[in-house]
Amino acid sequence: MNIHFKRYSHLTLHDQICQYFMDRISSNMIKEGEKLPSVRQLSKELGVSLVTVQKAYQQLQEKGYVESFQGKGVFVKSLKQPKNIYNTDTNWQMLIPDYVPRAQSLSISQPLRNIRYNLATACIDESILPIDWIKKVTMQVIEQYSYLLGQYSSANGDSEFRTAVSNYLVSKNLHIPPEHILAVSGAQQGIELVAKTFIGPNDIVLMEAPTYPGSIDIFKARGAQIIPIPVEQDGIDTKVLLKICDQYHPKLLYINPTFQNPTGTTLSMKKRKELIDIAESYHFLILEDDPWSELYFQEPPPPPIKSFDQSGHVIYLKGFSKFLSPACRIGALVTEGRLLEKLIAAKSISDLGSPLLTQKIIAALLQSTELNTILQHLRNNLRKQANQCVQLLHQNSSLLMFRPSNGGNTIWVELPKNVHADILLEHAHTKQLSFLPGNACFPTHVPNQYIRLSFAALPADELEQAIKSLCDIIHTLSQKYDEIERYPSF
Amino acid sequence: MNIHFKRYSHLTLHDQICQYFMDRISSNMIKEGEKLPSVRQLSKELGVSLVTVQKAYQQLQEKGYVESFQGKGVFVKSLKQPKNIYNTDTNWQMLIPDYVPRAQSLSISQPLRNIRYNLATACIDESILPIDWIKKVTMQVIEQYSYLLGQYSSANGDSEFRTAVSNYLVSKNLHIPPEHILAVSGAQQGIELVAKTFIGPNDIVLMEAPTYPGSIDIFKARGAQIIPIPVEQDGIDTKVLLKICDQYHPKLLYINPTFQNPTGTTLSMKKRKELIDIAESYHFLILEDDPWSELYFQEPPPPPIKSFDQSGHVIYLKGFSKFLSPACRIGALVTEGRLLEKLIAAKSISDLGSPLLTQKIIAALLQSTELNTILQHLRNNLRKQANQCVQLLHQNSSLLMFRPSNGGNTIWVELPKNVHADILLEHAHTKQLSFLPGNACFPTHVPNQYIRLSFAALPADELEQAIKSLCDIIHTLSQKYDEIERYPSF
Repeated sequence: MNIHFKRYSHLTLHDQICQYFMDRISSNMIKEGEKLPSVRQLSKELGVSLVTVQKAYQQLQEKGYVESFQGKGVFVKSLKQPKNIYNTDTNWQMLIPDYVPRAQSLSISQPLRNIRYNLATACIDESILPIDWIKKVTMQVIEQYSYLLGQYSSANGDSEFRTAVSNYLVSKNLHIPPEHILAVSGAQQGIELVAKTFIGPNDIVLMEAPTYPGSIDIFKARGAQIIPIPVEQDGIDTKVLLKICDQYHPKLLYINPTFQNPTGTTLSMKKRKELIDIAESYHFLILEDDPWSELYFQEPPPPPIKSFDQSGHVIYLKGFSKFLSPACRIGALVTEGRLLEKLIAAKSISDLGSPLLTQKIIAALLQSTELNTILQHLRNNLRKQANQCVQLLHQNSSLLMFRPSNGGNTIWVELPKNVHADILLEHAHTKQLSFLPGNACFPTHVPNQYIRLSFAALPADELEQAIKSLCDIIHTLSQKYDEIERYPSF
Repeated sequence: MNIHFKRYSHLTLHDQICQYFMDRISSNMIKEGEKLPSVRQLSKELGVSLVTVQKAYQQLQEKGYVESFQGKGVFVKSLKQPKNIYNTDTNWQMLIPDYVPRAQSLSISQPLRNIRYNLATACIDESILPIDWIKKVTMQVIEQYSYLLGQYSSANGDSEFRTAVSNYLVSKNLHIPPEHILAVSGAQQGIELVAKTFIGPNDIVLMEAPTYPGSIDIFKARGAQIIPIPVEQDGIDTKVLLKICDQYHPKLLYINPTFQNPTGTTLSMKKRKELIDIAESYHFLILEDDPWSELYFQEPPPPPIKSFDQSGHVIYLKGFSKFLSPACRIGALVTEGRLLEKLIAAKSISDLGSPLLTQKIIAALLQSTELNTILQHLRNNLRKQANQCVQLLHQNSSLLMFRPSNGGNTIWVELPKNVHADILLEHAHTKQLSFLPGNACFPTHVPNQYIRLSFAALPADELEQAIKSLCDIIHTLSQKYDEIERYPSF
């Protein structure tokens, strides 16, 4: 057991213990039917009172995560028969404390085997991606640079890759020399590098609520104290942000300003400039995550926050997996000075540098003369999928609330009050359908009234099937719970 | 400043402060000419006495890392004119505490620009690697599976890759189902995943001394307390290991048992079995790093420690970069049960999974019918290089002590008493030559009397040039210091 208590947190100790177990149970890191440590044992191990642990376990039971059996102990709740509780083969391994509190990204990236319609992963289906072009360019790279197969990249990244990124970013009003670019193995690694370099136990990290689930995992694993800031129609609520900054000393704000994952909202130009002012005044870093600002449906979005940054407070993160080759998983971190040096050191410690081959492929794709045509085509396809998804939702359910996005590839949907996202997901799974329950996008526990749908993760015809099927389930559940006039016990 | 003091360490506080700065200066994370915080400032920040900081700075000065200027402060020592000390452009960034104490791997993986003969990186030159075969297989993979360019891998790795590794490991007497294999982006990431999952501040990690420098960086960055165990001719000294286990409670032993990096020694069969007994008795994990057990020159080495593991105490790490495609940087972690689940969660948090493309390429190389022929050829070439290197060292210098290795691609050389490895490196750089100073391989500061040479990092003719040139410099330096009859001031 390895709970980093935050003595100055706004959460009580029993809330923190409860949150610790909720995180791990919902990430499937503590499994259905597993036994929790006894109250006495945990209280001793953590050096807290018996009452504190009892309160935490009671809370867990009230929230429906565990059940208690007289004389036997507290077990993670399961609708099915608990299995292997008494299997002690690798029991000693349970005694090894670990530092991985939550891995929500795992359950998202690895949907169940029998799922046919996966609306959970924020990716673009291969039928929509320009696979032929990617293949052609990849073959050219290997033909041209076969000697590179015997070489490592330097820790900060291949210079051709960094130059290609530098040139590409000009289209976003970012004028960045190649020396200020660090190649990373995908955006997730980019966030993790920043976290492991600058964030440690009890450092305060500000996050949008809701936000990208993988980022929560990272900052929780670093032991950070996360303070959620609400997201409005024009992006993060800067009034709340200012209040928090007056009260606490945040070290970093993680933000996804353009077609935000999961809400689809875009931070206004005014607020982008405002954020720079706030970061400079309160001396915190901004990590700007930009997975898909090129995937706009009408007008291009405002330029990145980084383009207004004169003082080096913004670390800009550009992922390429979402719209170039996912199989390469390559991205870039943009920053300068001391911050960059430390990030390169952290990258070197992490993996000595990203693979040279995948960097060369992404470099060639970015430098291709066809890139603009390809992107235009991709935008058209995604707009069609987004429109189709919105129409289908409108046609098939009047119970849902949502706002069409202007880019990206997710849509954020509010469920009817009597339909709980987790219950809906259980039913959806029986129809071979999956989505992301909104809960995964909040750093702390919230009523689970939202779902995120990835409208580009399926070909058009399958999307239609999936949305219709989903709306049917929602209707059935809503009627059922309306009839029995009570809120599900979960 | 972010020094994790280890209150129960065998090192005093001032020793720990001194070590902190030495790590960062020798990793080039604090640069020549930079000013250290004032004694008063640091004492306040760390909550230690002025005397403690003074002692630490005095130690640093005695060891030649810094110099003090009356009224100006303490500066990192430099033979050249200190530059940019008063450049305050990104000065505020210096105030941001970080969690990256040492990045020795960075300085190794990124040799200076003007180095022609790089004997520092433990890699195989592309003239020796089977590049044509790698290229052929890679082209086939892309031709056959072009749709995969649009797909992500799952967090634990592609199932074809895991099956290929499972089959490959049978040759090492390891019978591992694909479900017990986790794909990682190179061995360095494998070590880091284990460290971030199981090791936190003040956990005790045992390491061979000397050991692979990149692993020291990782465990230091986790705030671990590292206890070095000497390496004998037949591998780690198990008597010392037992004594340490009686005194402390280690959580993990990191070991490189076969053609150890850097010493080239191989752990005896007897000691392999003994290690399992010790780990079971004292309940610690063994991380067995195996970068090149297939690269033997005579007889195959004993099977991995993991092959004797019945109780799940050993996590086995197989890197493929050293002998298959370095540009793919793919490896595999092997473990089971709880440990595996947590490692998969950590992998998911780190980067959501390794790239699918590079996994498919390594899978195809491992499954190739030509693999055994290719490996045999590679072994022959490496044996030739190793023999050549040993002969050249014998011919050109009677001053050196070393033991030829039976595999791998490094040789560990003891310098004459009056030649210091760092001084030698400075002179070598002027001849466009580089090697790894042995100091980088020890977790704590030691007299720098060793160097590691990578005999496969250059083609045969260049290796000859490089070793001759190196021996010349050693002779000149040894004579010089012999004449002036004093030890260099460093």
